[in-house]
Amino acid sequence: MTTLATQHCEACTKATPTLTEAEISAARAELASEWTIDDAHLRRHITTKSFADAFAITTHIALIAQREDHHPDLHVGWGAVDIDLTTHAAGGLTKNDVILAARIDRAIG
Amino acid sequence: MTTLATQHCEACTKATPTLTEAEISAARAELASEWTIDDAHLRRHITTKSFADAFAITTHIALIAQREDHHPDLHVGWGAVDIDLTTHAAGGLTKNDVILAARIDRAIG
Repeated sequence: MTTLATQHCEACTKATPTLTEAEISAARAELASEWTIDDAHLRRHITTKSFADAFAITTHIALIAQREDHHPDLHVGWGAVDIDLTTHAAGGLTKNDVILAARIDRAIG
Repeated sequence: MTTLATQHCEACTKATPTLTEAEISAARAELASEWTIDDAHLRRHITTKSFADAFAITTHIALIAQREDHHPDLHVGWGAVDIDLTTHAAGGLTKNDVILAARIDRAIG
């Protein structure tokens, strides 16, 4: 099996298939337990000790996202980062979202 | 008059006074018209042409915030940045919020 964290995102269109429940379950087995799924969004909340720590993590994620050309919504504040992944073009969760989540996990632990 | 954008934020406590309506009105005259106030939060939405542009603005704001040791909540996504300012320690808007807003305006236009 090729792990998600070693795969790359691919360009998405409306025709890109969204993940089935079975595919989502399989993917979650590779992701940190902190990820939650709600309404076709994959989310992770990370607490930090400072704004600088939160922004450092945000920057790391932004660079990964830019490399993969698949972009999460990111919320950064004093002591926390929130990551929100979905594929707007496809109208749901796609392989890109779980690949990016796995790459984020690998980067930030 | 010393403009807000040349002042620095000061350490806040519960004893830090929140701004009066008159003070907020006076401050708004110095701020970009895009700022809105709702429920003791000062907010600005900025649209951009890309994630990279949005993240560049976010980084600029983060560095200003770190210099002033007063930190907004920031939301960054594909094509937009949202800034949310309030002073949690004081339970409302303080001088620090309008100073930071003015410094953000000066930085990003």
